[in-house]
Amino acid sequence: MAKEFVKDVTAMDEDFAKWYTDVVTKADLIDYSSVRGCMIIRPYGYALWDNIKNALDAKIKETGHENVYMPLFIPESLLQKEKDHVKGFAPEVAWVTHGGEEKLQERLVVRPTSETLFCEHYANIIHSYRDLPKLYNQWANVVRWEKTTRPFLRTLEFLWQEGHTAHATQEEAQEETLRMLNVYAQICEKYLAIPVLKGQKTEKEKFAGAEATYTIETLMHDGKALQSGTSHNFGDGFARAFDIKYLDKEGKQQFVHQTSWGFTTRIIGALIMVHGDNRGLVVPPRIAPTQVMIVPIAQHKEGVLDFAYDLKERLRKVARVEIDASDKKPGWKFNEYEMKGIPIRLEVGPKDIENKQVVLARRDSGEKIFVALDELEEKLPALLEEIQNDLYNKALNHREENTFTVQTLDAFKSQLENKQGFIKAMWCGDQACEDKIKEETSATSRCIPFDQEQVSHTCICCGKSADKMVVWAKAY
Amino acid sequence: MAKEFVKDVTAMDEDFAKWYTDVVTKADLIDYSSVRGCMIIRPYGYALWDNIKNALDAKIKETGHENVYMPLFIPESLLQKEKDHVKGFAPEVAWVTHGGEEKLQERLVVRPTSETLFCEHYANIIHSYRDLPKLYNQWANVVRWEKTTRPFLRTLEFLWQEGHTAHATQEEAQEETLRMLNVYAQICEKYLAIPVLKGQKTEKEKFAGAEATYTIETLMHDGKALQSGTSHNFGDGFARAFDIKYLDKEGKQQFVHQTSWGFTTRIIGALIMVHGDNRGLVVPPRIAPTQVMIVPIAQHKEGVLDFAYDLKERLRKVARVEIDASDKKPGWKFNEYEMKGIPIRLEVGPKDIENKQVVLARRDSGEKIFVALDELEEKLPALLEEIQNDLYNKALNHREENTFTVQTLDAFKSQLENKQGFIKAMWCGDQACEDKIKEETSATSRCIPFDQEQVSHTCICCGKSADKMVVWAKAY
Repeated sequence: MAKEFVKDVTAMDEDFAKWYTDVVTKADLIDYSSVRGCMIIRPYGYALWDNIKNALDAKIKETGHENVYMPLFIPESLLQKEKDHVKGFAPEVAWVTHGGEEKLQERLVVRPTSETLFCEHYANIIHSYRDLPKLYNQWANVVRWEKTTRPFLRTLEFLWQEGHTAHATQEEAQEETLRMLNVYAQICEKYLAIPVLKGQKTEKEKFAGAEATYTIETLMHDGKALQSGTSHNFGDGFARAFDIKYLDKEGKQQFVHQTSWGFTTRIIGALIMVHGDNRGLVVPPRIAPTQVMIVPIAQHKEGVLDFAYDLKERLRKVARVEIDASDKKPGWKFNEYEMKGIPIRLEVGPKDIENKQVVLARRDSGEKIFVALDELEEKLPALLEEIQNDLYNKALNHREENTFTVQTLDAFKSQLENKQGFIKAMWCGDQACEDKIKEETSATSRCIPFDQEQVSHTCICCGKSADKMVVWAKAY
Repeated sequence: MAKEFVKDVTAMDEDFAKWYTDVVTKADLIDYSSVRGCMIIRPYGYALWDNIKNALDAKIKETGHENVYMPLFIPESLLQKEKDHVKGFAPEVAWVTHGGEEKLQERLVVRPTSETLFCEHYANIIHSYRDLPKLYNQWANVVRWEKTTRPFLRTLEFLWQEGHTAHATQEEAQEETLRMLNVYAQICEKYLAIPVLKGQKTEKEKFAGAEATYTIETLMHDGKALQSGTSHNFGDGFARAFDIKYLDKEGKQQFVHQTSWGFTTRIIGALIMVHGDNRGLVVPPRIAPTQVMIVPIAQHKEGVLDFAYDLKERLRKVARVEIDASDKKPGWKFNEYEMKGIPIRLEVGPKDIENKQVVLARRDSGEKIFVALDELEEKLPALLEEIQNDLYNKALNHREENTFTVQTLDAFKSQLENKQGFIKAMWCGDQACEDKIKEETSATSRCIPFDQEQVSHTCICCGKSADKMVVWAKAY
């Protein structure tokens, strides 16, 4: 392949952060704009998001939820109704102070999240137990005034869905909170081929205003963690602040119990950093906008292009197939679709036509497979499934190889100096210990996993007896 | 039907504006929030928008466009690059002046439309004729600081799609501008059953920064017009302001030619005011979230509910069918689904089961039809198509009956005093006359229709010779 065709990316091992920004731009996922911290999501990046969104939206609807749309703005006084919530969000919001030529009497916040708006609406429409549960979701943009930003991982504006539900009892709210955490886990594992660690956030790390926050944590190629989806049980805290009551079957006024849960464009960052390699992006087949790219070889020769177009029409029934019949050289095309992480490249030239076969090149392993023409309808979907599973297993292996158990704070530190990853360690439950561990290691508690192990009997920080295993990591 | 089940709406003839707000709230389309001029789009309203959006998105993709996502904010300096554009929009934008605790060095506008962002991006990614055309679209929220607002029709924030394209030549840009206007016309006529009037806006009414604006205008039940979709040809005006150039095949630098086109949640207002009646909403079958609502009669009797559920499963293959098996009385249900405008109510009770038939009640005409059980798969889709066509024809008749031709300004005024509608009249092309007509009649020029007629030979205002027929109306 001639050098001029190659859009080089920095090697992962050399500079992981540079590799990441090379990939997001050279795979045409994003462009920068003159708006600080906001990105332009280009067609290929948006098509990825659309596929993730469609898969998640179907599950959200299957589990009985309905989509709605709430205002972009929140009046300052509304944001202030729940005290923990405003304390958590006020320092990082964008303020609208003027409309047209006029100064506003009350400042408006550009929504960083919409609990307060949903609460106000719920107070208005919930009256009786017959109105419950309310299972609402919205797809929207939100803004958080971050100081440092990186495409997908942390941007001033991002796209997400936020579910907001109201229930008659605390038990139902808790079921819902965990149900939606499991939906997120399924999307990650089955569609994005990313294994997740499920657990509960510590008090320190929970969402502003929540009673309990649950999370799915994923491990990136460089050993850092990424919080990939969260689900919150609010108890009746917001209901008390916003006076959301219903008349129960016995005719008594009761506060509702609420949840919220969110999943964002950030997951595209996880996709890149879990599956990508030094040649660019690697996209799991189930969410790939294009699963198979046909690249005709010696396409100027008679019959090749017609044959390739016919093949595309045939194979469209079993996969998302595109063809690149442009006059660019095959080497340029190979490089382009490797950078974009398209799962399979299908090469077909005069010799292949003669031999009634094509070449399938796997993006993930580089393997090239000759397949007889009349077997394509059967072998192509099977190969896509195989790639999907291989990507998941590879990511799972990587996570297992980079999950470490420590019994002391010293061992914790030297592990991180040696190699980053998930660190399993016991914790007494005292926030002072959590703070100290963070201060000394720069690692944060990712979660208290649902699958607990007694990896020792004492807190690695204070030495007191401890029954909680926490997974720690440096995080994005 | 017992009185207590009826959610009354004000009669149309009594107070059309009140009728409208009654319908949007009682059909559960929207709720008000404490954010001035912003509405909450409730599940039923959002499902309507989703169906419109999906139909339009499919056509946008069929015509070769790709979806992207641009930032919510526009730096003040970027908005100011095209002079007509900033003059048109600056007075009606929301300004972000603070991020977190800090005052911003440069104010940000919450996007009222995204021409400037697309231009900046295009200047960055377009280099050669090979990069053209660029056919981008985005689905987004936008904000315009309106003084008076009404749900769907005019809100501070609304949802829309905005297409933005760049082409090598002015001819291609003009083709694109008209292609997308026709796509909007199709969505209105084929899906929403709303006839449209296609034409060009006058200089006075065109989009800020455009060379030419084309529009589809629709006529509401009360004889007022609603601008329902616009498509703009920018020529190379924005390209010059933003320096968007490409190298042509001869190696010469050329400015691109651009278009933009938008379609918004406002169309739901049109849907309400074109098809609705004194019992509430009437939704055309093709975009109805629920096309057939099954209401079991005497559902406590053995076998009725099982029968109704089986019917739902059977009919799901031919239509979007739901069932209301709640313990509310049938009268209440009838009223509820009439208010929501569900095209067909299917009633089935013990007698019907015995007679192997059901009752289909049309929402639009009130007609009740007995259909044999084994004919439902055939008759139901046919009836939905018939309703769709009848709604369109009814709306078309209404428009024709309310389109008037005048030869003098006095006739114009007395027509509007007598009855509102589309007014066809000749215009000399002078803006002074256009201004005067508006001042004296409160009607604005809706468009210069593509289908021209010579309804007289002189301008109704100045009496000079005139060759342009304009359609005028009071408008939302």
